[in-house]
Amino acid sequence: MGNRLLDAFAFEYKHLLEAELRKLVDRLEAPPIIKKAMHYSLEAGGKRIRPLLLFATIAAFGLDPKKGLLAASAVEMVHTYSLIHDDLPSMDDDDYRRGKLTNHKVFGEATAILAGDALLTYSFEVMGMIPNDAASSDAKLKLVTEFAKAAGAEGMVGGQVADMEGENKELSLEELEYIHIHKTGKLLGFSVQAGAIISGANEQQLEDLRRFAHHLGLAFQIQDDILDLVGNPDLLGKPVGSDTSNHKCTYPQLLTMEGAKKALQHHIDESKHYLERTGLSTTLLLELTDLVASRDH
Amino acid sequence: MGNRLLDAFAFEYKHLLEAELRKLVDRLEAPPIIKKAMHYSLEAGGKRIRPLLLFATIAAFGLDPKKGLLAASAVEMVHTYSLIHDDLPSMDDDDYRRGKLTNHKVFGEATAILAGDALLTYSFEVMGMIPNDAASSDAKLKLVTEFAKAAGAEGMVGGQVADMEGENKELSLEELEYIHIHKTGKLLGFSVQAGAIISGANEQQLEDLRRFAHHLGLAFQIQDDILDLVGNPDLLGKPVGSDTSNHKCTYPQLLTMEGAKKALQHHIDESKHYLERTGLSTTLLLELTDLVASRDH
Repeated sequence: MGNRLLDAFAFEYKHLLEAELRKLVDRLEAPPIIKKAMHYSLEAGGKRIRPLLLFATIAAFGLDPKKGLLAASAVEMVHTYSLIHDDLPSMDDDDYRRGKLTNHKVFGEATAILAGDALLTYSFEVMGMIPNDAASSDAKLKLVTEFAKAAGAEGMVGGQVADMEGENKELSLEELEYIHIHKTGKLLGFSVQAGAIISGANEQQLEDLRRFAHHLGLAFQIQDDILDLVGNPDLLGKPVGSDTSNHKCTYPQLLTMEGAKKALQHHIDESKHYLERTGLSTTLLLELTDLVASRDH
Repeated sequence: MGNRLLDAFAFEYKHLLEAELRKLVDRLEAPPIIKKAMHYSLEAGGKRIRPLLLFATIAAFGLDPKKGLLAASAVEMVHTYSLIHDDLPSMDDDDYRRGKLTNHKVFGEATAILAGDALLTYSFEVMGMIPNDAASSDAKLKLVTEFAKAAGAEGMVGGQVADMEGENKELSLEELEYIHIHKTGKLLGFSVQAGAIISGANEQQLEDLRRFAHHLGLAFQIQDDILDLVGNPDLLGKPVGSDTSNHKCTYPQLLTMEGAKKALQHHIDESKHYLERTGLSTTLLLELTDLVASRDH
């Protein structure tokens, strides 16, 4: 990575997050096999971009990012459930994710579906567990309802439906952006919003951060599409060109590689623009934005 | 049915509930196919036992059951999602439910999984939408967290996992009860608890109602097992004896039919005992309890 401030921050908070996720699943009184399947996918690693965005947003307000630990855990649970369900044979039918066997390849389809259901359900309980000194009851209720909107039919699930419907079709740029804004963008956006709600942001800051996250989400997805064509399969944990072989429409395909890189830069610039408008201490968020644009996996 | 008070009550509130469920899904800005799949299973009918329990509990406190309309809708969404996922090929592999094709037979597996995910997610948003004059922010947060507990790994999902693990095995009565207490009982129990929370119940009333619902849930399941052996397939909407052909352990199998009927009566008596202890106006809840014991589908 090379960004010293972000490196240390990411190291510390990924560690805290992963310990919290383990603890949260361990405490469940539930059949051992479902806990094992939940742990398996939560521990499958990944960049933990959503939790880091949430923590870094709280840091931008000059507050202790640990106030966001339960909210960040909830967000990562929902992201993880979505990967488990997306990988199922009736969906993307993937055997590997980040170089590890997918959940249903290890535990079977039925348990994988239920592990996803359990993570999704638990995420709302975890959001409700935030202590009162980190968020008021009203703030917690706002977190729950915005979280559900971002994850559900109007958000991530809607994006996944549109993605499936778009397979084997020529999409317009507008249709492609609908998919990404919903499938990836809404939960990324919620991560920033959750950090802002926990920090007591005012309306203008919420709006600027919403726009920041909107452009960051699109940048994230464009880089994803670019990496699928030119990335290193060892770093990606999946073969290069899988979008093409899965008949998925991508930015480079619609805009050429040149155009996709230009669009990436545009969204990175826009996201930084809105970030600067907040007047917050945005060093970590800016470094995270650069990381999204230049990441290699 | 023949219970005049409950008949009129059930007619009115099933109607209100079904209109509310339609409205709640209609208002979603989401791809039409996912809304269609959500509507399809929500409209598949059923007894609406959980919403009726919730409404009748509020009525027992002498309050307007309409205060529970959003909470009842949320509970029915979660019940419906659980049926969609349970029917999937990798789970119970059912083609019909209540005489209608199951969700995945109409919309395909991927959309069925996502329709279930969307209903589950939306249910938490709907719970958060309860107006402040029906429940305080603290009461709503309690509803959200108890709802998640009842539906998740420690509740309904855990019961489904245990049920799958118990297939083709001889179970003890204790193991069978674990399955039913979790798979059916927790959400039934939450329906009563939600009505009590909305009504501002005190601790003693909450505890008595919790025990009432515990025994009612077991009675419900025992009657389910009995009906599977001696019921009318036209009323049930499924063939008689399907538990046996699915290698599911049942109460009549463990206790004989005679013993199962005795256990049913025991749990009905216990549930009425705890209901009477509340000192509330329990006419509707008592009629619902009798309905559970004597229902033919």
